[in-house]
Amino acid sequence: MQLIDGKVVAEQVKQEIAAEVAQMVAQGRRAPHLAAILVGHDGGSETYVANKIKACAVCGFKSSLIRFEETVSEAELLAAIDGLNRDPEVDGFIVQLPLPKHIDEQKIVEAIDYRKDVDGFHPVNVGRACIGLPSFLSATPAGILELLRRYKIETAGKHVVIIGRSNIVGKPLANLLMRKDYPGNATVTVVHSYSTDIKQQCLSADIIVCALGRPHFLKEDMVKEGATVIDVGTTRVPSTLTKSGFKLTGDVDFDAVAPKCAYITPVPGGVGPMTIVSLMKNTLLAGAKAIY
Amino acid sequence: MQLIDGKVVAEQVKQEIAAEVAQMVAQGRRAPHLAAILVGHDGGSETYVANKIKACAVCGFKSSLIRFEETVSEAELLAAIDGLNRDPEVDGFIVQLPLPKHIDEQKIVEAIDYRKDVDGFHPVNVGRACIGLPSFLSATPAGILELLRRYKIETAGKHVVIIGRSNIVGKPLANLLMRKDYPGNATVTVVHSYSTDIKQQCLSADIIVCALGRPHFLKEDMVKEGATVIDVGTTRVPSTLTKSGFKLTGDVDFDAVAPKCAYITPVPGGVGPMTIVSLMKNTLLAGAKAIY
Repeated sequence: MQLIDGKVVAEQVKQEIAAEVAQMVAQGRRAPHLAAILVGHDGGSETYVANKIKACAVCGFKSSLIRFEETVSEAELLAAIDGLNRDPEVDGFIVQLPLPKHIDEQKIVEAIDYRKDVDGFHPVNVGRACIGLPSFLSATPAGILELLRRYKIETAGKHVVIIGRSNIVGKPLANLLMRKDYPGNATVTVVHSYSTDIKQQCLSADIIVCALGRPHFLKEDMVKEGATVIDVGTTRVPSTLTKSGFKLTGDVDFDAVAPKCAYITPVPGGVGPMTIVSLMKNTLLAGAKAIY
Repeated sequence: MQLIDGKVVAEQVKQEIAAEVAQMVAQGRRAPHLAAILVGHDGGSETYVANKIKACAVCGFKSSLIRFEETVSEAELLAAIDGLNRDPEVDGFIVQLPLPKHIDEQKIVEAIDYRKDVDGFHPVNVGRACIGLPSFLSATPAGILELLRRYKIETAGKHVVIIGRSNIVGKPLANLLMRKDYPGNATVTVVHSYSTDIKQQCLSADIIVCALGRPHFLKEDMVKEGATVIDVGTTRVPSTLTKSGFKLTGDVDFDAVAPKCAYITPVPGGVGPMTIVSLMKNTLLAGAKAIY
């Protein structure tokens, strides 16, 4: 069993990006610039945005943070997005989700110029990824592809079972893993809450991706010997063992499942660190005008 | 075994559309208007476009045909598209594919205003369909959904195996059948040329969709008793039995497979007639401004 170390890969990719940025700057071009809009003071969102800004510093990017109070109107937010869309000094930007309930998230996502949509949530980017055209890939699927690539895990002709059909993980990852590329060319099955054959599907899988958000859902008797298991789950479970009072818990019963695996990602330290790295890669592509 | 009669369903849907159009017109609104651009004189394309225009007449739509010679430049074609995009009297339009090799098809598809893209090929429509937002669905997947709906075939919790991962059938259909809706909520597997487990996957399937374009690929020993089989294949196979000298042949070895099936579509007369009906439905939605 080999542990897939997302932390190590994430650091490696950030260093590679930093080297590219240094080269851009040496050639007289400006460093890529990522802006983030943060609404309110949700603890999780504050942490995510702070980590993204930290990662920008490591990569040599310029970053800006635009804050709004919880009470911001949709119109004000749309005006800020319009400003960033027009600002030639901003290469890409994100609006940290979730947003307060009085704001229509989908409207916000679609208001972002798709050429600056480094989260990859705009329908144009989703659609282009689906068709196999160059696009900003959304962070978690792109991070998983990067892990498979770095560990040279074969996907062609393999059976991949994805548990969970969300718009930000399950569905886009399924599309990516069936395309004619590496990682790709896999037989892909998506199972979810309506599926009656989850165990049976998982037992035939060479690669299982758990993205349903239910702690310890994947048990040892659902995994065949020599499978690769990718755990996307990050549920906060109360814990007396940590200072924060909770523990990030994956969808995989790690201790029982790991001995059967060829490769497995831990939680934390597996897919998690890769998501921010995907955002950094998209920002680099945006700065280099490599896609649009 | 029940035959799924695409011809009958297609006629029924066209009559329903015609009734809606009659109502629109009675209310003083104009009938939906579909325009088609046809380049060159390819026999297949001529037939498809003629059939689409005939279907418009049955539905009570206005239709226009804009013809270009094979030698048309990309710029001329883009100018024609721009004209249709701006024409308030045109609700939706299509550019019949394939196009001559000197023209970039993807560029043409993306030049169409997505709000008039009744073929559903524009990245915005592909992406919105993938996320589950209202959009123009592409014709073949939408036609298959309609057949499942009309024959009340259960999909929730069923295992659907789709053979073929094309951008116009396999991938969009997979996305649609896994969404939270009816038809949908299925466990979906996509297999293709790289898959090593096609027979095994098919044998576990409640519903098999063949969309690979290889005559008689699906054999009797690949189908479980009581399965539903949808045949998207339409390969022209030389034949001495027809006036035209060829016979449309499906991907399913129909005579051997049919006796095992709960439901099966024939070729011709199954999925084929439904694709034009899907285009008609999109044109109705475009005329009623029901999506955008």
